[in-house]
Amino acid sequence: MKQVCAGLDIGGTNSHIGLVDQDGNVLFELALPTKQFAGPERFVQAAAECIRTGLSTTNTTLHGIGIGAPNGNFYTGSIVFAPNMPWKGDIPLAAQFEQALGVKTVLTNDANAAALGEQLFGGAKGLRDFVVVTLGTGLGSGFVVNGEVLYGHDGFAGELGHVIVERDGRRCGCGRNGCLETYVSATGLVRTMQEWLGNSAQPSPLRNLPEDQITSKLIAEYARQGETISVEVLAYTAKILGFALANMAAITSPETIFLFGGLAQAGELILAPTKEAMEENLLNIYKGKIKLQISALNGHAAILGAAALAWK
Amino acid sequence: MKQVCAGLDIGGTNSHIGLVDQDGNVLFELALPTKQFAGPERFVQAAAECIRTGLSTTNTTLHGIGIGAPNGNFYTGSIVFAPNMPWKGDIPLAAQFEQALGVKTVLTNDANAAALGEQLFGGAKGLRDFVVVTLGTGLGSGFVVNGEVLYGHDGFAGELGHVIVERDGRRCGCGRNGCLETYVSATGLVRTMQEWLGNSAQPSPLRNLPEDQITSKLIAEYARQGETISVEVLAYTAKILGFALANMAAITSPETIFLFGGLAQAGELILAPTKEAMEENLLNIYKGKIKLQISALNGHAAILGAAALAWK
Repeated sequence: MKQVCAGLDIGGTNSHIGLVDQDGNVLFELALPTKQFAGPERFVQAAAECIRTGLSTTNTTLHGIGIGAPNGNFYTGSIVFAPNMPWKGDIPLAAQFEQALGVKTVLTNDANAAALGEQLFGGAKGLRDFVVVTLGTGLGSGFVVNGEVLYGHDGFAGELGHVIVERDGRRCGCGRNGCLETYVSATGLVRTMQEWLGNSAQPSPLRNLPEDQITSKLIAEYARQGETISVEVLAYTAKILGFALANMAAITSPETIFLFGGLAQAGELILAPTKEAMEENLLNIYKGKIKLQISALNGHAAILGAAALAWK
Repeated sequence: MKQVCAGLDIGGTNSHIGLVDQDGNVLFELALPTKQFAGPERFVQAAAECIRTGLSTTNTTLHGIGIGAPNGNFYTGSIVFAPNMPWKGDIPLAAQFEQALGVKTVLTNDANAAALGEQLFGGAKGLRDFVVVTLGTGLGSGFVVNGEVLYGHDGFAGELGHVIVERDGRRCGCGRNGCLETYVSATGLVRTMQEWLGNSAQPSPLRNLPEDQITSKLIAEYARQGETISVEVLAYTAKILGFALANMAAITSPETIFLFGGLAQAGELILAPTKEAMEENLLNIYKGKIKLQISALNGHAAILGAAALAWK
């Protein structure tokens, strides 16, 4: 029977599970609503059930499992204090999956998994120094330097979302204030929109919606149609992202920065003003040298990256 | 005859030249006042002359030259737009030394050279993820990740001194505003002192000195004696450094950060408040895990690191 690896992309809102063969083909895929599970044990049970279903459907056997998760630690196989996850504390998810399915399970940060996916199957083929910035519920980042994923001494490198960009700024889920992801993420964008709607008297169709229906997707959609406040809110968000990327570049000097995830799907509406703000804030030796682009892989990259981790 | 490599540590104010054998012994050493040379050609002539003198004095032959210089590029062998250097533009220093002395010359960022020195001969022996922050005329940084120096795609990684910590902050030599080194460096410290003396009416022996005699060394000396404004100015500087180090840690997650250079010689007076500010601003997953210490090598590390580069 053909062998596959399961690639899991775990997010604060939804998780994606895929069965991936050695050539990077996704043979089976489905999503689970992470938030609906009271604890990680239930989630692991459900995910294991999905994987078993997938294996019998595709008539394959399981070689291993790769997981990308927020605050996932490559060295310990745990999710640790992830501010955007419904489950708190230190969760030994890799061990729980190994127990449930009896195969070797490797876990890393979701953004590191996306970076691996980008390197193996996306726009980063052949690149030795690049960054993938994931714009989801929060903001994650996966760095590849000298051709290798940057894990840092403890497995927690690449938390660009928790670089403080505004001292005494917005309260963050991590317990501090002014973190990049409180401005630049799906949640950050919605917070900005609420602030702007509150502070201005400008008419907007968004005023007619109940608060919980204002999502980042909707804002991007309105911006695409030219709705003024939505365009401004996206541009403001991009400005902060561009500033943070310029500061980050002074540390790792990447060749390309890939934007990935829901917010990245706003395309040029987020890319153009981010690029402008980045260039404006870059030290002259970096100006005009760093490519900024939307990941072409999106959804799949994280699954593929996670599976690639397991194939390794 | 015994072979040696020349290690050059080029600074905005002074440069140090050493002849180093394969075991890391410095057989000959002297300093040149960088600022006194009208252009790099004159400097190379003088340095070459010093090296020749050193070789005949020590009865050795020259195997190669390693250079650590501000904005030094490992890939091109040039110093490029270094804000704190007296010579402007793109200076192909490695090629000029090769021509002058006829041996292979390798050049890198001065802070990268210090990091190599720290790894080979200092406190970073055996560490795979650490940073050396050089506090001289400006602020430099050399990152080692996964055991290797982080050069970035273009050879310019590790410009922590040009991370913007204060939007619309102090004017920097790089043409932008609010860079870390405008606050945290010998020059930054003096700027802060001038500002504080101007803004307060507090008595201080520093008020009796002509402006050009207020140096970072003097401020550290006064702080050691307990002079109030000097202590406060050092603590303010350390607070900004600690904040920047916490933000940096969210990207590379180092095991140890070494402070190196003139300002680092203030010892606990800079170390203690920097550590406090860093811990205060660290994301919880990093808290209590990152060692911050003064480099024990100081002056020599840069020469040794530069020479090590040549021995490689």
